[in-house]
Amino acid sequence: MAIYVLRLGHRISRDKRISTHCGLVARAFGARGIFYSGEKDTSLEKSINSAVREWGGHFEIKHVNNWKRFIKDFRGQKIHLTMYGLPVQKTIPKIRKPRKDILVIVGGEKVPGEVYQLADFNVSVTSQPHSEVAALAIFLHEYFQGMELTRKFNNTKRKVIPQERGKKVIQP
Amino acid sequence: MAIYVLRLGHRISRDKRISTHCGLVARAFGARGIFYSGEKDTSLEKSINSAVREWGGHFEIKHVNNWKRFIKDFRGQKIHLTMYGLPVQKTIPKIRKPRKDILVIVGGEKVPGEVYQLADFNVSVTSQPHSEVAALAIFLHEYFQGMELTRKFNNTKRKVIPQERGKKVIQP
Repeated sequence: MAIYVLRLGHRISRDKRISTHCGLVARAFGARGIFYSGEKDTSLEKSINSAVREWGGHFEIKHVNNWKRFIKDFRGQKIHLTMYGLPVQKTIPKIRKPRKDILVIVGGEKVPGEVYQLADFNVSVTSQPHSEVAALAIFLHEYFQGMELTRKFNNTKRKVIPQERGKKVIQP
Repeated sequence: MAIYVLRLGHRISRDKRISTHCGLVARAFGARGIFYSGEKDTSLEKSINSAVREWGGHFEIKHVNNWKRFIKDFRGQKIHLTMYGLPVQKTIPKIRKPRKDILVIVGGEKVPGEVYQLADFNVSVTSQPHSEVAALAIFLHEYFQGMELTRKFNNTKRKVIPQERGKKVIQP
């Protein structure tokens, strides 16, 4: 059982940082990889890959040309995060039951209407406008029931030792 | 008892969208306002204020010139979100006990060392690099124990009626 994220409609000039945050959140909160459609962005891929090299774990980032085909072909449950969907706190138990792979779809400004149809669940994290980064984090946090917060990452070059004040980083 | 957010070191060119997401998350997840230091950005303020006008609730955004003075003068608990701090799942019970106002401090790339000293708690949401937007959302979600997900906003011009597919927005 693995979770992947699909970030729709990436635009280099506008979305670089938000998409990077989506990728880093996906990794830190236990997803196996992020796919993105829109403009191919080697700098985005480098940022994510370098975080994986430094901080460990198995995580991949890949560009997809045809998002529609990609969603259709994905074997598993397709979850679209949108402020217009059904509340996460009500849908999570249904999503957690079938032990299938999951694709979490996060959009940008304008999500094509088809995405709502292709998804098995349209899920909202509050019905307020906020952030795909936050929605993704809360969805994964609820899915893993907080267990992702203590997740270990192997093959790491750096590891933080939590401190009351200041920074402590070791090289394990 | 109210929660406020302080976003450190905003730079218009680089941080506009991330700071906007921080502001929208602060509002959607139950904070009363966001303060920000760094460059004053009227376009950031407009984005947040227009979301408040459309979607309701009481929420303010204000620029602060002297973040150090601001943190020192804040009456209440000062929480600094950082991947180097103590785990959120362990610190939240201690933070929740004294029913005082809370200032949640989120940094950008480089946070001055003094922030770690001025904070009552340095708190991490995982010890992995990810996103201040996600860290803020998870902190507020844990603080409010998920109750923020069903929060009602008054004085709203628009309201989403959650749907299985598509969008339904009413004007209450």
